[in-house]
Amino acid sequence: MLKDMFLNLQQKDVLVHNITNYVTSNSCANILLASGASPIMADDIGEVEEITSICGGLNINIGTLNERTIKSMITAGIKANELGKPVVLDPVGSGASLLRTKTAHSLIEKVKFSVIKGNISEIRSIALGKGTTKGVDADVSEMVTEDNLETTIEFAKNLSSELDCVIAITGAIDIIANSHKAYVIKNGHDMMGKITGTGCMLSSITCAYIVANPENVIEATAAATCCMGICGEIASRRMLEQCGNMSYSTYLIDAIFNMNAETLEKEANYEIK
Amino acid sequence: MLKDMFLNLQQKDVLVHNITNYVTSNSCANILLASGASPIMADDIGEVEEITSICGGLNINIGTLNERTIKSMITAGIKANELGKPVVLDPVGSGASLLRTKTAHSLIEKVKFSVIKGNISEIRSIALGKGTTKGVDADVSEMVTEDNLETTIEFAKNLSSELDCVIAITGAIDIIANSHKAYVIKNGHDMMGKITGTGCMLSSITCAYIVANPENVIEATAAATCCMGICGEIASRRMLEQCGNMSYSTYLIDAIFNMNAETLEKEANYEIK
Amino acid sequence: MLKDMFLNLQQKDVLVHNITNYVTSNSCANILLASGASPIMADDIGEVEEITSICGGLNINIGTLNERTIKSMITAGIKANELGKPVVLDPVGSGASLLRTKTAHSLIEKVKFSVIKGNISEIRSIALGKGTTKGVDADVSEMVTEDNLETTIEFAKNLSSELDCVIAITGAIDIIANSHKAYVIKNGHDMMGKITGTGCMLSSITCAYIVANPENVIEATAAATCCMGICGEIASRRMLEQCGNMSYSTYLIDAIFNMNAETLEKEANYEIK
Repeated sequence: MLKDMFLNLQQKDVLVHNITNYVTSNSCANILLASGASPIMADDIGEVEEITSICGGLNINIGTLNERTIKSMITAGIKANELGKPVVLDPVGSGASLLRTKTAHSLIEKVKFSVIKGNISEIRSIALGKGTTKGVDADVSEMVTEDNLETTIEFAKNLSSELDCVIAITGAIDIIANSHKAYVIKNGHDMMGKITGTGCMLSSITCAYIVANPENVIEATAAATCCMGICGEIASRRMLEQCGNMSYSTYLIDAIFNMNAETLEKEANYEIK
Repeated sequence: MLKDMFLNLQQKDVLVHNITNYVTSNSCANILLASGASPIMADDIGEVEEITSICGGLNINIGTLNERTIKSMITAGIKANELGKPVVLDPVGSGASLLRTKTAHSLIEKVKFSVIKGNISEIRSIALGKGTTKGVDADVSEMVTEDNLETTIEFAKNLSSELDCVIAITGAIDIIANSHKAYVIKNGHDMMGKITGTGCMLSSITCAYIVANPENVIEATAAATCCMGICGEIASRRMLEQCGNMSYSTYLIDAIFNMNAETLEKEANYEIK
Repeated sequence: MLKDMFLNLQQKDVLVHNITNYVTSNSCANILLASGASPIMADDIGEVEEITSICGGLNINIGTLNERTIKSMITAGIKANELGKPVVLDPVGSGASLLRTKTAHSLIEKVKFSVIKGNISEIRSIALGKGTTKGVDADVSEMVTEDNLETTIEFAKNLSSELDCVIAITGAIDIIANSHKAYVIKNGHDMMGKITGTGCMLSSITCAYIVANPENVIEATAAATCCMGICGEIASRRMLEQCGNMSYSTYLIDAIFNMNAETLEKEANYEIK
């Protein structure tokens, strides 16, 4: 199944419009190319609607948001909705500042997202903003562990149901949920937390995967997430004595470049709950 | 001849002012350093004239343009013209959005460029904007091949003549033309299309080469283009089994760093038409 | 002593707020992670105070400053002062344009910095802006050498005394001074000047070091500087025949990632004057 998601992406010319931060934009562009897709980065309000129109999907990342780009994000998101193109939200730092939290909420109010991907803090801040208490309580902790896994899955499913979009909670254990099922993914490596941009890169390729698989958004998101995690593992096996996080960052994107359907299918470590 | 272009760059302290996108600015800075030049990135309208004044040349790249930086590009370009410093234009995405196309046209109207470098789509969108039909027709296809080579060379020469600047059309075959001759360059490697920033990097070093060779703009542009292509070939030979596009990106800049006049002269694969 | 600075950083969860340029922000983020700290990049005036509040310290780098971000720098700096959090200034290009020089002066007037780090030209432009002549004269040359070392140390001490902050002058010889003593550091490698961002990266990790060592700002700054220089040496020893500046850039951050207290203490090459 994940294999098909991957193969569909290889067979299409997927172009992703990214409105994203300047810290990791180069990595996002290169990982999209490594995945077999192509990137366009464009954030001026005077062109975002047109750029979204020529792309397969839109990836919004609020990592270094500012007043100007927030307007562009909303405008592009509305346009993508009008055209029926999928939109991914990476609410980087939502919960860390009021501007980020409010921007994430404002985006969710005005734009219909196909996937919202963040760590547990970011996703929690989004749920809180919805003014709902369902599933948002003390049990949804700062880290997803075996102990709180069931609770967090329920939380993700409920949020998915409320927002009508796939919710991807990333961490040592990743949870990709829609309203009735969740992929619980255990691929990945600790080193992924020692480089900048792992999350941003995952959002970018998730957008590419769902563009290529419009009928299977949750499976496509799971495929992108497994792919990233597996590549994190492959990259770790390439580390020699003097290698550090910067080499790891290169190896991670290299592994995405060399990924194939068989490896993805075989190495994916997930269950559906 | 190309050898001399290279040696002149090594012997001078060339400083290039870049008004460029945030996706590939780090690669552009590093490839300028690898080439023996130095980069300054500055895009605030309050300083671009002064920064251009202390630099040897100006490289304008519209990759992540916005309303604010467009003004800076025009202001800096006009200043560079006043001071007689060469200006390079990389009209990234011209043709993909009206904002980019109009910005490219506006820049060309207000600023005299020494070199305009783009892929065939970008250069075609520039020619169309000139309101000319000369050479812009169905024969100028989306890809430069052996079949349409002669037509494209004519198109490039005509455009060069109209705009009074060197036109560099990059692709599997590169065409560097002025009004009466064209370098047709066949260096390069497919992997160059699998990394972000190849084009942006070429614009940056082209600017450095023409600063160092003010009397030989077309030869300097050809030298920069051959150098980039040869380094693309060298980088490909360094790829081991697990290497992917991110390693390739590193190897490409490394190869620029290790380039020498003899290799450039020997490996350059071009003819003059 | 330097060893303790290093160990304190490893033992704390240091979060650094960076308002920095888009050219080297990825390297700064990765070197902070390599150092055991964490980065946040945020430059919108609507959130910088809040982001500074949740961080241990603030690193201001004027590398690609603009009208919008200058306001954010000042606002964030004032907030950090109110909260007693250390602030580092990297006045990139101060002296190269009036906007940069004035911004650096304006920042220094409104914000109390713990450390100001720059090359000799940048630091000199700051001293000149203070309207002082003490120590700023023909003897403070464009490059710190053995011949002008004593004069430059005096200049740095005087400036430190006037601004009440540690002054870090980087170059082949680094001088880290407060009003009564100076660390003269001779670690480093020529290749560090062939990559973009060495200075920006040093500012980022300096901020992390002083957050972890609030009582020992000069020692923490010296530790960060020695660490960077030693890693520049280690990186150079990893260079193989085909390696160039881009590989070197990776190796430098890798070396920071693999640094340990013993190596720092043993390889640090400095004297206190």
